[in-house]
Amino acid sequence: MNAATKQPCREIVVSGVGHTRFGRLDEEDVESLVVEAVRGALADADVPGDAVDAIFFGNFNVGMQPLAFGSSLALQADDGLLGVPATRVENACASGSAAVHQGIQAILAGAANTVLVVGAEKMTNSSPETVGRALLGADYDAAGTASRHGFAGLFAAVAHEYQRRYGSIGDEMAWIAAKNHANGLANPYAHLRKDFSFDFCRDVTDANPMVAHPLRRTDCSPVSDGAAALVLQRENLAVRSLARIVGYSQSNDYLPAARRDPLAFEGTKAAVEQALKMSNRALTDLDFAEVHDCFTIAELLVYEAIGLAEPGRAREVVNAGTTLKDGRLPVNPSGGLKSKGHPVGATGVSQHVLAALQLSGRAGDMQVPDAGIGLVHNMGGLAVANYATIMESL
Amino acid sequence: MNAATKQPCREIVVSGVGHTRFGRLDEEDVESLVVEAVRGALADADVPGDAVDAIFFGNFNVGMQPLAFGSSLALQADDGLLGVPATRVENACASGSAAVHQGIQAILAGAANTVLVVGAEKMTNSSPETVGRALLGADYDAAGTASRHGFAGLFAAVAHEYQRRYGSIGDEMAWIAAKNHANGLANPYAHLRKDFSFDFCRDVTDANPMVAHPLRRTDCSPVSDGAAALVLQRENLAVRSLARIVGYSQSNDYLPAARRDPLAFEGTKAAVEQALKMSNRALTDLDFAEVHDCFTIAELLVYEAIGLAEPGRAREVVNAGTTLKDGRLPVNPSGGLKSKGHPVGATGVSQHVLAALQLSGRAGDMQVPDAGIGLVHNMGGLAVANYATIMESL
Repeated sequence: MNAATKQPCREIVVSGVGHTRFGRLDEEDVESLVVEAVRGALADADVPGDAVDAIFFGNFNVGMQPLAFGSSLALQADDGLLGVPATRVENACASGSAAVHQGIQAILAGAANTVLVVGAEKMTNSSPETVGRALLGADYDAAGTASRHGFAGLFAAVAHEYQRRYGSIGDEMAWIAAKNHANGLANPYAHLRKDFSFDFCRDVTDANPMVAHPLRRTDCSPVSDGAAALVLQRENLAVRSLARIVGYSQSNDYLPAARRDPLAFEGTKAAVEQALKMSNRALTDLDFAEVHDCFTIAELLVYEAIGLAEPGRAREVVNAGTTLKDGRLPVNPSGGLKSKGHPVGATGVSQHVLAALQLSGRAGDMQVPDAGIGLVHNMGGLAVANYATIMESL
Repeated sequence: MNAATKQPCREIVVSGVGHTRFGRLDEEDVESLVVEAVRGALADADVPGDAVDAIFFGNFNVGMQPLAFGSSLALQADDGLLGVPATRVENACASGSAAVHQGIQAILAGAANTVLVVGAEKMTNSSPETVGRALLGADYDAAGTASRHGFAGLFAAVAHEYQRRYGSIGDEMAWIAAKNHANGLANPYAHLRKDFSFDFCRDVTDANPMVAHPLRRTDCSPVSDGAAALVLQRENLAVRSLARIVGYSQSNDYLPAARRDPLAFEGTKAAVEQALKMSNRALTDLDFAEVHDCFTIAELLVYEAIGLAEPGRAREVVNAGTTLKDGRLPVNPSGGLKSKGHPVGATGVSQHVLAALQLSGRAGDMQVPDAGIGLVHNMGGLAVANYATIMESL
């Protein structure tokens, strides 16, 4: 796949993070979520509002909330932010990483020394029909159509195709769900902190019904409210540094499903390869990865796209326990979208926040011992907009 | 107002432009508009798709079209664009300029040598109620409310406040409308190529009814479909160069109206001042300006914000004919939003395209003689997100 000619990413650090709880937050709206996350990040970075040079806001929305122009909401958090250029970016479920990457570029461009990145979504006060319609708005073919299953139906078709080519993966998807739920028990921000066993995730029951065959409820990330924020700075200006950004890449695939192999995740493959290349690192150097498990089939396909397994052989990763918290490459030690929840615009920022906490030894019970280098992977649509970031400890 | 510390903008040129007709284009949808504008810009720049390093897409949408995830639509124009990072940016009616400015930063960041910028909106197949609701989604207070007048009601309140403080401006607004319609007669892309006289624009008639007092129909830009695109390149790589970007700036104001003086357009003032400063130019150096005249009262307030007149004295600009095509500073020689139409996400890109045509002597009957330096001003909401770009001929 095509790739941008990118300068190396030098001396940019995450200097502070903020994160609301993810979940059904009835008292919160987009503004209050943004304000809480922004204030948390600025305080953590010890950066006053008037030191911020640019703001990037990741938000999907699409009719879930009436306010459709949210870039200046961050200014509600701190009067020092008045006048700061603020831009909303959107790449469906990767809107949060779009905000992080634009923030990186603003610093590399010399347009900013200090960037505030915030992602937020308020979903749970919308009807399931409204949320389903909003999310299907991210699919070229399904946008505007009535669909019983929403995006789960699209990923279910991907899982079907995988099983047609390579055999059953019901157990493997259940294993991923159980792993991420086990990890998420340690995440104080997570929406679903529930100890769902492998058996529970595998068996179709009243408590774990089929949502869109072969995806059970436990194969799907929940609809959530939440926000996350971080401060990016030139390293020499940061009061403290949680993690250094050493590689970043984005790759967009064609929008119509017919123009993509649904199992190849080629844009994800390209983005991760390029980000690793920029950072002069290999997959085997990674200590952990936060990847986009909107559905368990997505995490399974990411294993193949990033090279943990050959195409069709992701079950080897599962059988070897490679991606367990104490495996060779822990994947989603935060619990992933599966356990954390997936407030669309917040997700990518949250992934970077969680990675920064890991790399600064501040991940609490989520901590991967000696985490020195991590990957964040976030995607919009069915691997249409694909982002990868490599971060290192200082 | 606060301002970002910005490096000068060096050696970035507009090397090609594309522009669809603006208007009621029943045969076109967002994708076909994007494809037409993108192919036009790539061909004009003599750039193959696989030379593009990044794509930025300006689009507002907000329920007017079911597809809510449009960044990869540009890839439909040219298979060489497969894999190129593509990002939608949104700042309400300034979404197009948001795309241009992110494109500039991608080059300054070393992340791209060649950037494709495209803005598009499809509006006329939506009901007036849907369009009104979408546009009101850009206002903190009015979002989600039922409003008879939509955004016209908000700018009408601004005009009322101006008249309360400074006396009647009915004639001045009519003069601006007549000027822009006269200019737009020469614009082959314009939606409303109509020779509306000053008397026609002044008098409330069946043909020119009051929309929201004191705004008549001729004080409002029309709802339109359309797209515009341009290629930004490092100057040394460009096959041809239409104009050089020499200054750019963005300033965001608070979102709630109660936190802004509705007549001060402080963010616009800050952005234009900073862009001029970056380019080492003064207002008096400008040969023309394309400014955001979504309503005639907006252009009138821009006169004051950029320093053509003191606060409350914009009528002096009108009386002196300063902004006529043959005046001291021609404003909106393209006809502005008033005549061109205002397909939201396309508008800012279109303004940059028209400026590039002026600066390369390709503006046809719109041409301002010897145009050497121009200003583009674009804003989202009631001067909430404000963009200014200074462009020079080569």
